[in-house]
Amino acid sequence: MSTSKPTSHPSPTSTAAPRPAFTRLLEALPASVPFVAPDALMRRTGRPIAARLGANESLFGASPAAMKAMAEALADVSFYGDPESFELREALAEAHGVSRDAIVVGSGIDDLLGLTARAFVSVGDPVVMSLGGYPTFAYSIDGVGGVLHRVPYRYDRNDLDGLAAAAHTTGAKVVYLSNPDNPSGSMHDAVAVEAFVRALPATTLLVLDEAYADFVPPSHALPTIDIAHAGVLRMRTFSKACGLAGARIGYALTAPETIRAFDKIRPHFGVNRIAQAGALAAIRDRPFVDHVVREVAAGRAEYAGLADELGFNALPSFTNFVTIDIGNARRATRLVNLLLDHGVFIRKPGAPPLDRCIRVSIGRSEDRRLFADALRAIVRTGALDEA
Amino acid sequence: MSTSKPTSHPSPTSTAAPRPAFTRLLEALPASVPFVAPDALMRRTGRPIAARLGANESLFGASPAAMKAMAEALADVSFYGDPESFELREALAEAHGVSRDAIVVGSGIDDLLGLTARAFVSVGDPVVMSLGGYPTFAYSIDGVGGVLHRVPYRYDRNDLDGLAAAAHTTGAKVVYLSNPDNPSGSMHDAVAVEAFVRALPATTLLVLDEAYADFVPPSHALPTIDIAHAGVLRMRTFSKACGLAGARIGYALTAPETIRAFDKIRPHFGVNRIAQAGALAAIRDRPFVDHVVREVAAGRAEYAGLADELGFNALPSFTNFVTIDIGNARRATRLVNLLLDHGVFIRKPGAPPLDRCIRVSIGRSEDRRLFADALRAIVRTGALDEA
Repeated sequence: MSTSKPTSHPSPTSTAAPRPAFTRLLEALPASVPFVAPDALMRRTGRPIAARLGANESLFGASPAAMKAMAEALADVSFYGDPESFELREALAEAHGVSRDAIVVGSGIDDLLGLTARAFVSVGDPVVMSLGGYPTFAYSIDGVGGVLHRVPYRYDRNDLDGLAAAAHTTGAKVVYLSNPDNPSGSMHDAVAVEAFVRALPATTLLVLDEAYADFVPPSHALPTIDIAHAGVLRMRTFSKACGLAGARIGYALTAPETIRAFDKIRPHFGVNRIAQAGALAAIRDRPFVDHVVREVAAGRAEYAGLADELGFNALPSFTNFVTIDIGNARRATRLVNLLLDHGVFIRKPGAPPLDRCIRVSIGRSEDRRLFADALRAIVRTGALDEA
Repeated sequence: MSTSKPTSHPSPTSTAAPRPAFTRLLEALPASVPFVAPDALMRRTGRPIAARLGANESLFGASPAAMKAMAEALADVSFYGDPESFELREALAEAHGVSRDAIVVGSGIDDLLGLTARAFVSVGDPVVMSLGGYPTFAYSIDGVGGVLHRVPYRYDRNDLDGLAAAAHTTGAKVVYLSNPDNPSGSMHDAVAVEAFVRALPATTLLVLDEAYADFVPPSHALPTIDIAHAGVLRMRTFSKACGLAGARIGYALTAPETIRAFDKIRPHFGVNRIAQAGALAAIRDRPFVDHVVREVAAGRAEYAGLADELGFNALPSFTNFVTIDIGNARRATRLVNLLLDHGVFIRKPGAPPLDRCIRVSIGRSEDRRLFADALRAIVRTGALDEA
């Protein structure tokens, strides 16, 4: 960082003059962003957020072991991180019972989705996802000129039959499935996902976003997928149960040939050193994750009870958030804004049929109480239904 | 992170079967990486590195203020960073005397080079850089299918006339200039760079990589460039003088219209929270940077003296490393390997005419002593010239 030299004198001729042209692809993109951040909301409202429950971050923090590892890693912050994330991949390989060559580490799942788009999708290629699915996946596909085909949720869950059918009709290069799902909170069990994998065209890549994998209750199971199957790319993150969202680290599991392809385009020195240290310690601190998962399960039950008390319906959740049916999109939007006035930041799904819902992260008991108090106050004053 | 489910049972049929195809662009890319990391060298040799002087990292660490800010930021590591890097951009805007809208923050210059390639370069577009210039810039251009035209160094410096001429002949979309330069250590003064900007076609974007800006001595000046000039994209980093390489943070300065274009494709939540905090504190700790810059200046003089003592020629340096002429490429390569045997990690330029040189980062006096001792030992035993 140096503070010398550039000046800000306006140059009236510079915009009129010929200038370097953006790519046609970029010119065609809208000026939209996937999410408005809580930071921006605070700046806009001028008020602090007391309960940050809108981005499915972990209010339980990172494990003491991960915190210690990151604090220690700061001593070497002047050195670039290991571009191969060797130690971390060794530990992940052991944990998953796969080869290190089947793992690529990135700066969070968002980073890996961007690489996937670049590796598999050319301009005009068809891509299938659920209508209302993860906006950042759509953003990555838009960014490479892929053409998105969106399949509506069915019974408030990803419509696996519909997604598979769309993959066949469109000849999709990629299909995206979040399981457990964001923003519905739902999940399809192992058997259904395994059947879905078999139902897809052999030339379609399934991006299986398992960001919420840790929260799956013992009653349910994630699919078993042969890691040599080049048709499935599983993604995991340290942002949710491990509480490392701000450190930016996640990984993908798939056939080594795909990992080698990522090596041709990924930013080799992109993953930061502090995150690598934190993630390595987090893997080894399973009791902490178990603790978070228990707290989250308790919070899900609490939110379901709260919804019931106020005459709303909480959708079944297999994640660290609960999606609550507020009746219609207008009321749900209104509720998001009213909660923000109470210092409670939540979000809501953007597309039907889930746009009638709000989506609330499960915080600690004190965070949940702030949300519950605010929700009760809003509902009881009738503010939710004012014109 | 979850450790459940994927299995590694080999599936003999899966690779023979039809599978999702990579893009043609990716298929055409070689399986090369820009740099071999010191971590990989240690794993290969099985020996620790005593002096890490090959990646131009700062051996002086980060400032105490930045360290404190990052340690404190760990408390909120569960929260995603601010996607707008608002506070940091405010501070940078003030420091540079420009509008916040003229600044984009990324996960280091490498990240910003990747975005630049995606924003400006389509398949087949001509791009100009120096032969032997920053490999990661070339990697980014290869990754979007741009066609690189390389102009040899002249008198061991970037050949500005040659680069400008090549930009005209090829109709270059982008020209890359590192100034002060890596790997030569040289620089062109303000007047020369300003003339270079004027000499380029109006439709060519100049990527002006100023990673080493902080190390420019008072006798020299960086160019003054109107920030409204959409034809120049200046890049700065916290990885060098500020010692935050492992945190991954840098920024670009240019016309707001280009910043808005980056907003269409950049990973909004990509910059990690710890780095944002560290960078903000680093900007405010100018005395620390001044201290590093003084130490580096002393080290440059010391390396020049060492080279002289051993009959080598150190090229003039305006950076935190010194490039030393070893006579020819064979000897230079041999020296890099011999130094590694002594636990000293350095690198060398890969292309002529600079491939006759080694490139050594300036560490603390103890690091410099390790390098000097090893170099003297190698030269005196004659190992450098053995068959």
